[in-house]
Amino acid sequence: MTQQRKIILQESEIPTHWYNIMADMPNKPLPPLHPGTHQPIGPEDLAPLFPMELIKQEVSTDKWIEIPEEVRDIYTLWRPTPMYRAYGLEKALGTKSKIYYKYEGVSPAGSHKPNTAVPQAYYNMKEGVKKIATETGAGQWGSALSFACKLFGIECEVFMVKVSYEGKPYRKVMMNTWGGTVHASPSSLTHAGKTILAKDPQSPGSLGIAISEAVEVAATNNDTKYSLGSVLNHVLMHQTIIGLEALKQLEKAGDYPDIVVAPFGGGSNFAGIAFPFLQNNLTGGKKIRAIAVEPTSCPKLTRGEFRYDFGDTVGMTPLIPMYTLGHNFIPSPIHAGGLRYHGAGAIVSQLLKDGIIEANAINQTECFEAGLLFSGSEGIIPAPEATHAIAEVIRQAKQADEEGVSKTILFNLCGHGHFDLSAYENYLAGKIKDYEVSKDEISASLAELDTPAI
Amino acid sequence: MTQQRKIILQESEIPTHWYNIMADMPNKPLPPLHPGTHQPIGPEDLAPLFPMELIKQEVSTDKWIEIPEEVRDIYTLWRPTPMYRAYGLEKALGTKSKIYYKYEGVSPAGSHKPNTAVPQAYYNMKEGVKKIATETGAGQWGSALSFACKLFGIECEVFMVKVSYEGKPYRKVMMNTWGGTVHASPSSLTHAGKTILAKDPQSPGSLGIAISEAVEVAATNNDTKYSLGSVLNHVLMHQTIIGLEALKQLEKAGDYPDIVVAPFGGGSNFAGIAFPFLQNNLTGGKKIRAIAVEPTSCPKLTRGEFRYDFGDTVGMTPLIPMYTLGHNFIPSPIHAGGLRYHGAGAIVSQLLKDGIIEANAINQTECFEAGLLFSGSEGIIPAPEATHAIAEVIRQAKQADEEGVSKTILFNLCGHGHFDLSAYENYLAGKIKDYEVSKDEISASLAELDTPAI
Repeated sequence: MTQQRKIILQESEIPTHWYNIMADMPNKPLPPLHPGTHQPIGPEDLAPLFPMELIKQEVSTDKWIEIPEEVRDIYTLWRPTPMYRAYGLEKALGTKSKIYYKYEGVSPAGSHKPNTAVPQAYYNMKEGVKKIATETGAGQWGSALSFACKLFGIECEVFMVKVSYEGKPYRKVMMNTWGGTVHASPSSLTHAGKTILAKDPQSPGSLGIAISEAVEVAATNNDTKYSLGSVLNHVLMHQTIIGLEALKQLEKAGDYPDIVVAPFGGGSNFAGIAFPFLQNNLTGGKKIRAIAVEPTSCPKLTRGEFRYDFGDTVGMTPLIPMYTLGHNFIPSPIHAGGLRYHGAGAIVSQLLKDGIIEANAINQTECFEAGLLFSGSEGIIPAPEATHAIAEVIRQAKQADEEGVSKTILFNLCGHGHFDLSAYENYLAGKIKDYEVSKDEISASLAELDTPAI
Repeated sequence: MTQQRKIILQESEIPTHWYNIMADMPNKPLPPLHPGTHQPIGPEDLAPLFPMELIKQEVSTDKWIEIPEEVRDIYTLWRPTPMYRAYGLEKALGTKSKIYYKYEGVSPAGSHKPNTAVPQAYYNMKEGVKKIATETGAGQWGSALSFACKLFGIECEVFMVKVSYEGKPYRKVMMNTWGGTVHASPSSLTHAGKTILAKDPQSPGSLGIAISEAVEVAATNNDTKYSLGSVLNHVLMHQTIIGLEALKQLEKAGDYPDIVVAPFGGGSNFAGIAFPFLQNNLTGGKKIRAIAVEPTSCPKLTRGEFRYDFGDTVGMTPLIPMYTLGHNFIPSPIHAGGLRYHGAGAIVSQLLKDGIIEANAINQTECFEAGLLFSGSEGIIPAPEATHAIAEVIRQAKQADEEGVSKTILFNLCGHGHFDLSAYENYLAGKIKDYEVSKDEISASLAELDTPAI
């Protein structure tokens, strides 16, 4: 065989530490504020929701945080994940550029989400927590946390956005198979859910609403904590295992990327692959362009405002300094459910503000077209979220060809599309619609906010 | 980390040759017979259905057949597949035995089937074939062949057993995503399908019927060939890549199995992992016990008769010397659709007849229970077919513990269960039924046969 397609690491090469980009940022993110007082919050404010070790990680500026041995042991169920040189896609495009992808779909839950679900469940277990409540959109995060909780003997209660609960029943069964309990959100189990249902009994739900419900369950039950699958600093940090492995793999291939691309929902997917490379950008090393790709239907990075906003719809979470469309913004029902979130995490928002990263928004039709080209040339059927990265990679490769140069492009293939085939069915039948948000819609949503500007 | 969980090979370690057990069998299988004349068939009889290279492989007694470079290159999309030491399952069982599994679910189609789909599509492409017709039960095979055909630019037409077509719509979409055309079988597109529908317009279909339809399409169209996902000698041989890799991986682990276990449908899954180890049994080397596991609802190995029978329902294929329940036998609708086939391949049947391999039948309730234990301890949710192997492994480990010994057990985790979650849903809801076939039912089905005895 003339070409090596996969770059494989041994288990002994799994990184021993997560990378904390906080240590290297020229401007640290502004502090989160208390939702009532608008004063910076302290660890004690977060204690009802998170175990102390995760609160410490959330505010840490240590550059490296050691991965517990028990977590690394469980990581070996699917890690190190393979890196592929995308020879098939390169050939299909006829590009001179080199394309690599890191494939996170080999995890039991089928995405990158277990990278943080496992340590989160672990630290909760260590501190005696009996139950974790969480939300899930497309179901990737709920699956990952159910899986992780099962391994550590913790109960898992998932509030799943109603439109996904009804449209993706097998994701629910997957959670059940790992012992998770799943409710359609908004539910009548919480005050938050009841309030929403009173206003709109037919509410399709949103990630913001589901977060409100899960936070309420954790805040009002002593033995229950809350867990979030993206946005927060510690979540992004856990995901850096992806990029740290990718660095080693590209070193084996004798290569280094010019461009790193990832889909963007709350930031964990993008941070996971990009931050370890940005470390070099920030410390005088070789520079990459890091591009976060969001759907045009939920364009907080490219068209949102940088200000304080709530992480949830009801307004129970701390105020986070973020690029946001407003916490009441309900994105159109695109198939990349994992990208339907109104805001971006504090770290990623600060990096975008400071021009250290870039963002781009792409329509879902172009994304599905890219996904189909990918599945036909590389075999793997990508999750709709992942197709956003592929579409951007194709744009970048074409642009490089037009300019007569060859780029080395790395992207995060964050998950497979085995639970998203109804979306592909719609695409193949010509039934996929694009949603461009109007200027007025965004202005109106932002005008509703009475949260502090920055 | 104290324990290494995965045993990983590099792409350069992918075997260069398939192993042909025909070379080492003490008694070669009897020849297939012409369905009309009952005389041994020659290559020219098979030429309308298969490309000449596959016909040669079907009758070859060469011990090693070289894998074409182009096929090995495509194998690297997912191969070498990982081997796991099942520490989680061992702990859950509290067993002293060592359990290893080879995980074939990492292929794009999610099972071991692409191991033979890719070379079959390749040889067809080389001989100028434009289209391949095939059947599929649970959808694993149809997905694998659609994927393989896409890579080589060949059309793929799939007759999918109607009950699966209706119950597993996402498998159909997966085939469509790779460009495959899928029909519910029995269909009105073929004479065979029309005949069945005339007798029973509500026929749920069966693998045997779908084979009849696909064979008819190939036999009556010049540019179209037929492809089978199991049973035939060349198909089993292509799958030996699994066991050949497993041999290398266990060598790295410094181990050798006492027992090798695999689910049994037509034989390719079992042959794939077991034959390379049986090579040692047959040539004076270290001996394993090889156990094929079938569902109690379709017990051809444990309760069938060894005689000539058709591979399909209508009686269009050559007569194969096989353990069979009769080609009119319609198995109960268990969830392991890939194991619902009336007969066993000629090689495996001969090995069973000669006492070289063993067989066992297990009820699906016990299998799902095993699958749930596995998914909670190892993470991966197994396909219902694969749970048959897991259930047998658990039996063997428990028996060894009772005897106070430690065994080394290897099994083939042939695929994931991402398209079978409705089956898990039924199991979790207590709705799974067991089907024991009555003695009279088997006798009646066999009594209908007018095919030659052996």
